[in-house]
Amino acid sequence: MTDPRPREPESEDDFAPARTVVAGIDEAVDTGDAARLDNLLEPLHPADIADVIEQLTPRRRGEFVRLYSREIDGEILSEIDESIRDEVIEALPVHVLADAVREMDSDDVVDLVEDMEGPERETILAALDEPDRVAVEQSLTYPEYSAGRLMQSEVVVAPEHWTVGETIDFLRGEDWLPDQFYHVILIDPRRHPTGYVTLGRLLSARRGVRLRDLTEDSFRTVNVLQEEGEVAYAFNQYHLISAPVVDADGRLVGVITIDDAMNVLDEEHEEDILRLAGVGDESSLSDSVIETLRQRLPWLAVNVCTALISATVISVFEASISQLVALAVLMPIVASMGGNAGTQTLTVAVRGLATKGLTPGNVRRVMLREVLVGMLNGLVFALALAAIAYVWFGGVQLALVIAVAMLINLTVAALAGIAIPLALDKAGADPALASGTFVTTVTDVIGFFAFLGLATWVLL
Amino acid sequence: MTDPRPREPESEDDFAPARTVVAGIDEAVDTGDAARLDNLLEPLHPADIADVIEQLTPRRRGEFVRLYSREIDGEILSEIDESIRDEVIEALPVHVLADAVREMDSDDVVDLVEDMEGPERETILAALDEPDRVAVEQSLTYPEYSAGRLMQSEVVVAPEHWTVGETIDFLRGEDWLPDQFYHVILIDPRRHPTGYVTLGRLLSARRGVRLRDLTEDSFRTVNVLQEEGEVAYAFNQYHLISAPVVDADGRLVGVITIDDAMNVLDEEHEEDILRLAGVGDESSLSDSVIETLRQRLPWLAVNVCTALISATVISVFEASISQLVALAVLMPIVASMGGNAGTQTLTVAVRGLATKGLTPGNVRRVMLREVLVGMLNGLVFALALAAIAYVWFGGVQLALVIAVAMLINLTVAALAGIAIPLALDKAGADPALASGTFVTTVTDVIGFFAFLGLATWVLL
Repeated sequence: MTDPRPREPESEDDFAPARTVVAGIDEAVDTGDAARLDNLLEPLHPADIADVIEQLTPRRRGEFVRLYSREIDGEILSEIDESIRDEVIEALPVHVLADAVREMDSDDVVDLVEDMEGPERETILAALDEPDRVAVEQSLTYPEYSAGRLMQSEVVVAPEHWTVGETIDFLRGEDWLPDQFYHVILIDPRRHPTGYVTLGRLLSARRGVRLRDLTEDSFRTVNVLQEEGEVAYAFNQYHLISAPVVDADGRLVGVITIDDAMNVLDEEHEEDILRLAGVGDESSLSDSVIETLRQRLPWLAVNVCTALISATVISVFEASISQLVALAVLMPIVASMGGNAGTQTLTVAVRGLATKGLTPGNVRRVMLREVLVGMLNGLVFALALAAIAYVWFGGVQLALVIAVAMLINLTVAALAGIAIPLALDKAGADPALASGTFVTTVTDVIGFFAFLGLATWVLL
Repeated sequence: MTDPRPREPESEDDFAPARTVVAGIDEAVDTGDAARLDNLLEPLHPADIADVIEQLTPRRRGEFVRLYSREIDGEILSEIDESIRDEVIEALPVHVLADAVREMDSDDVVDLVEDMEGPERETILAALDEPDRVAVEQSLTYPEYSAGRLMQSEVVVAPEHWTVGETIDFLRGEDWLPDQFYHVILIDPRRHPTGYVTLGRLLSARRGVRLRDLTEDSFRTVNVLQEEGEVAYAFNQYHLISAPVVDADGRLVGVITIDDAMNVLDEEHEEDILRLAGVGDESSLSDSVIETLRQRLPWLAVNVCTALISATVISVFEASISQLVALAVLMPIVASMGGNAGTQTLTVAVRGLATKGLTPGNVRRVMLREVLVGMLNGLVFALALAAIAYVWFGGVQLALVIAVAMLINLTVAALAGIAIPLALDKAGADPALASGTFVTTVTDVIGFFAFLGLATWVLL
């Protein structure tokens, strides 16, 4: 008997719109068949419809919006990737846009308008009811990527002296409640949050129990100026579902819910992975050729410069290479092994910093471990390459030279791989952003220099 | 007036245990001061205490567990990283472990015991109450990384014909309710879930309203065999807070909540980023030197093999290099630019596949874009390197050769960068796992071959 495996193979399309639907949508757009489009999209979740819009070719996208504009609501709009949202918004009739915006929670409206120019932003804000508009404008006064931009202003609060019964009666009487809320936040008379009660606890307690006797230990507030990545970290670390947001005076100004935090976490990961690869962190699959070129080219230009440094090192040893061409054959191996080992260490260090696993408490131990691993790997591959070089080119001395160069380079790779991200982090830069270039420059330069230098000294 | 910035610089330690606390803990462990340890840890969240335990040196960790064992509860235990959890569990007195396990939700117990050997697992299961033990054993029958392992069996259900009042009265009478629940799941008489009602809606509706009239559109069930990554995708894509889990017959067997999904999402990202860097995806900062070596070495061994392929290509052109050493100086630039450009494209492709943004609907457009960007980058850097080669070494022909080689290699890099992850994905392999090695092998080989081959043909 073997274990049944999770349904990996077929699961690809379980949650994504099926291939046939996508093909059908292309056809419906091409033939201008609005009724068929409505039929095909009717069963889809707004998030999936947004994905479909993102995946259309730019030409089809314009046509799609024209055919489907009546149906594009706030939910679809807030799901569309920023890189093409402007395009969609511009193509929408003003009254459709106004209706869509009125449906949205204040945090989604903020997300929609924060990158817009003045007049465009005004058009959208004008469509909102007075209290919603004030809330959005308030959020926009906080810096970008702060908790203030992430929070929604619709908050369910109760005075801490209320009973369960009073609270339930109050909730039954209100018709403005947010779509999703998970806690009732307790406030004192000066609107300072003092705790929260989960709805589950509220429902399972007797009517006479006071709210203050039902509060959760997990309660923690978020400062409105807190950076959004830190907020996401706190949600993940402390398993929060929602967190009240307070201003500098500790007064409640909004609430952040876990779905927003999950989104931020996702974006931060995406940013890390793209930055490590030297891809612009705003990159999206729907970007045009020109935008993509604009993001990628600067990183390659940096790489030309660092590659030139390595080339300069090689050129110092031109005479040695022309005497012994085996050096030119073997030198890329030393450099490439260093680059790979350095990237391994650097990725672990960058992730450790991002997840707060690498701290002053363990940094020395981790550094020591990395350097030891680098040296041990260096020993293993020194032996392996010495053997290969000996068999390939003969000569004990050449074998010895590549062995020592490999040991040096893998040790340096480990050191650089951890020291460079730590230094960047200390300097306030994002370690994911530039570490890769620095580390591979170091391993290339040291690799070529150690191998060619030793060879010149020993062999020639 | 400038915008206030989010509090990035100081925020580092906002949510992590402060440096002074960590230093104090080291001291308390070293002096065997249990009372001081209790004092220092008392204000910390269980997740932070788990982080502290992870960051101790292995020697201190044993001592820490001895001093603090009375206080180690289910919450701390479920937060400790898998790589050192076994170590901690072994050091705990049996009755402490039993108490800890009894407090945990069934999904946390499953997470704790799933990697344990038979006898160890039995000890823990024996500590559970009968219904909890049955639930955990049931979960363990589902494959690893399936929804069945992720779900908790504590579910709050109600028949769909109940009214709000009946439901609230029922909840008030129950004392086994889970710590956190966000929905009441409606079931038919055969225990098939038919919808769910958020607690917010339950609280704000009149007592006489029927549950079936309050259900949410967002309702979707998860199959118990669904792969956990797919479940996390669904939570993120559809902004789910909890999702009922059903067996093959559609019967309710458990519920997955968003905090578990957020965890999986986090792990999947971690896996992607570590796999792209050729680091074992089980790697952790608390791993020992030997474990780390064991994870890293195989990837470097693969890299030696691919580097030998490149070296073989170079050796074919030994005669050319000994005639014109400039070739040895310039050839790493061509290879390195190809490697970088290939990594850019490959990272975008791997992310696109992981986030389901790259689909049959847009794959041709994205491929075309990447190849066009590769060619344009190739043109730009062909010109740049032709100029550099001309100034450095003189000779129009050498400049021409490096230009053409660069154009070829960056175009091939783009093609390989997208085609290789797509092919791996199609073959059912994780595109993050091996793409990097394949792509840089292709760009090295093509880079060296194009440059040295053209040079031999044109110059010599």
